[in-house]
Amino acid sequence: MKQITRTPIVILNFKTYLESTGARAMKLAKVSEEVADETGMNIAVSPQQADIWRIAEEVNIPVLAQHVDPVDAGGHTGSVLLEAVKEAGASGTLINHSEQRMKLADIDAVVKKTVKAGMASVVCTNNVETSAAAATLKPDFVAIEPPQLIGSGIPVSKAEPEVVEGTVDVIHGIDPDVKVLCGAGISTGEDMKAALDLGADGVLLASGIILADDPKKALLDLVSRI
Amino acid sequence: MKQITRTPIVILNFKTYLESTGARAMKLAKVSEEVADETGMNIAVSPQQADIWRIAEEVNIPVLAQHVDPVDAGGHTGSVLLEAVKEAGASGTLINHSEQRMKLADIDAVVKKTVKAGMASVVCTNNVETSAAAATLKPDFVAIEPPQLIGSGIPVSKAEPEVVEGTVDVIHGIDPDVKVLCGAGISTGEDMKAALDLGADGVLLASGIILADDPKKALLDLVSRI
Amino acid sequence: MKQITRTPIVILNFKTYLESTGARAMKLAKVSEEVADETGMNIAVSPQQADIWRIAEEVNIPVLAQHVDPVDAGGHTGSVLLEAVKEAGASGTLINHSEQRMKLADIDAVVKKTVKAGMASVVCTNNVETSAAAATLKPDFVAIEPPQLIGSGIPVSKAEPEVVEGTVDVIHGIDPDVKVLCGAGISTGEDMKAALDLGADGVLLASGIILADDPKKALLDLVSRI
Amino acid sequence: MKQITRTPIVILNFKTYLESTGARAMKLAKVSEEVADETGMNIAVSPQQADIWRIAEEVNIPVLAQHVDPVDAGGHTGSVLLEAVKEAGASGTLINHSEQRMKLADIDAVVKKTVKAGMASVVCTNNVETSAAAATLKPDFVAIEPPQLIGSGIPVSKAEPEVVEGTVDVIHGIDPDVKVLCGAGISTGEDMKAALDLGADGVLLASGIILADDPKKALLDLVSRI
Repeated sequence: MKQITRTPIVILNFKTYLESTGARAMKLAKVSEEVADETGMNIAVSPQQADIWRIAEEVNIPVLAQHVDPVDAGGHTGSVLLEAVKEAGASGTLINHSEQRMKLADIDAVVKKTVKAGMASVVCTNNVETSAAAATLKPDFVAIEPPQLIGSGIPVSKAEPEVVEGTVDVIHGIDPDVKVLCGAGISTGEDMKAALDLGADGVLLASGIILADDPKKALLDLVSRI
Repeated sequence: MKQITRTPIVILNFKTYLESTGARAMKLAKVSEEVADETGMNIAVSPQQADIWRIAEEVNIPVLAQHVDPVDAGGHTGSVLLEAVKEAGASGTLINHSEQRMKLADIDAVVKKTVKAGMASVVCTNNVETSAAAATLKPDFVAIEPPQLIGSGIPVSKAEPEVVEGTVDVIHGIDPDVKVLCGAGISTGEDMKAALDLGADGVLLASGIILADDPKKALLDLVSRI
Repeated sequence: MKQITRTPIVILNFKTYLESTGARAMKLAKVSEEVADETGMNIAVSPQQADIWRIAEEVNIPVLAQHVDPVDAGGHTGSVLLEAVKEAGASGTLINHSEQRMKLADIDAVVKKTVKAGMASVVCTNNVETSAAAATLKPDFVAIEPPQLIGSGIPVSKAEPEVVEGTVDVIHGIDPDVKVLCGAGISTGEDMKAALDLGADGVLLASGIILADDPKKALLDLVSRI
Repeated sequence: MKQITRTPIVILNFKTYLESTGARAMKLAKVSEEVADETGMNIAVSPQQADIWRIAEEVNIPVLAQHVDPVDAGGHTGSVLLEAVKEAGASGTLINHSEQRMKLADIDAVVKKTVKAGMASVVCTNNVETSAAAATLKPDFVAIEPPQLIGSGIPVSKAEPEVVEGTVDVIHGIDPDVKVLCGAGISTGEDMKAALDLGADGVLLASGIILADDPKKALLDLVSRI
């Protein structure tokens, strides 16, 4: 199990695209590993639960779950147990992604459980206010993704730079140890550079790379300006 | 990928017990395969999503998912995509388990998607009325589990035989092709025999085997009277 | 409390439009009562919870809740208790509306509770299959609303007459006592006549009347062909 | 519509007890008003949606909703629209009660909408961490209720005074304008005095008063030490 140890970091969310399921998820993870090796960039991948084991077996970059449920071991048929994704090879998890919003009390419980398990916690948020709220829970990362920009191809770092700066400021005002990721609409090297220039510690992205004609080329471009 | 091809069938739900997670899930799957081989009984296992791939690689008995979400491929971070569990090696799925109840429209959508994918659909229900409702959706199996008996050690086939008989009658009245499983409280060979005598085509069970001191012995006992 | 006693019936769902909230809900209920009185047509209204009491006090037509939660009296802050809407004056409730989908086990529980309370139960469904499933639960009405037609202005009775006929057939095959309503896209007298000609016992509608320039005129037109 | 204008405040959550539904809700609201008049104490009541209108018509103390949904006016059958409870007479609302937990993004949206409507927002939380998170969203009140003490009769102010003090400190560190309420297990004058002594601005309670043999006597005792 490979940990996230440095920033800046690129986290690639595989979502539930067919282009990033099963054998194609494995291929995308290997491409991500190649780009990490070739460029020295930190890249983590976040595949579906069913693909974590085989990917974590094969690649030497961090693998994150896309979600874990706020349950402890026991009778919870169909739930995603943190212990299971950890044993499968995940070294962290996304939490409260815009496509998997969670209750406040559950975000708190999962962040605590993730930290206790020695895993990385990445809490996704939709604006400056909820980013501040998330920061009080002391996750490793808060990833700000204005919902109107997700999948838009318009990078938040360009469309709403004040949201990124405001988020960085407010989060560091609450807890300077919480790192900030920029999501939503990021796809090019220019977008990523702009995010880091605004104070972000990395990016969280999906369709811009996964649905690209040539994901390796897209990833190489993404990290080319750092 | 091994299909469910005959009845009577034993489906072993691994839930999210630590005793059936990761390496211990694998061990339990192998024990299930041994008992299937030694006795000729049909046994399927339903591990957590994260364990499907490694188990399906190693054993030659049917592997079912515990749940799939009512989504198609796309942007659904954290959801369980049917295509993903199928590619991981699942040949069917539980649907609407009492610990993962679903909306009626979603049960319908997932049954249709499962059938279309050539996978086995096992819809769980809580009483005679909802069993009838489930049967109209034409799944392969309806598994009746009165909630008050789940994990109780009291078998539905003994505590409420009229529920099992009533369910079998009403389901076959609606669609004779839908098979009936008995869940909740089943753990011994006597329980399973009683279920089949009442007209059931098999059993769905969990803690009675998984938390047994000796799961292999418990499974051997379960199928000893058939 | 006025009961639904005859069919054909028009049920007007007030949803959460501002045009049908508070004082405007009251006005719309009075208009509905006027049209019922003038034409002899059975018209019921389904306002928001907060408006049930004042409307039921003032009009002499049936008032239905839009939803009740599957809970019994007790500690359930924020839930909609059937006993509360009944005491406020509701003589029935919509169940499982497409904007408030429920779990199968909960639909069953709420239908039973509604029947036991002597109130009318109207279960909404999205296709022929889920209509059959709903019919097995023995509600008073099943209201079929193909989701793609809701709010479209295209009546299901015209766009998909086979869905209405198929639903009527399959429901009556399961239980001839269950009445069938046609929803989604209904707004004119022609639409309503087509629905009844296809075997429906009435219509469930919302925006076509509520958002009309002149709701009374729209309601009068709706019932003009019966 | 009567506003909350001063602290200390007592907020009486009617939940969905039969003892506080319909006519009995009205009686309890009148008792609350009497005690407020006789003692000069600020008392607000939070009845079910269906009872807001009739209670707000009859009593001259603040009436709060128990919950509002994160929706704007439109097609949301069965949802609780803020505009509807406001027009019915509510001057504020509970948000994220332990029996009606909400997603973080939705708490943020509802707090903003409540503030914009000139209504009081009372966000319920389960521990110090989520209280801090809630405070960043700038509601009028945060009500801390450790879930293990709800309905226990054991007051949080006695069982876990450090939770109350810690919550007051952390909330005022984030925003000194956010007021703190103490919930869970409060029922006597001694409990309430202890809560205020620990820095709370009031209490949120339910069963201790509502299920008391003599609710008026219980309320009089509650406020007797202030």
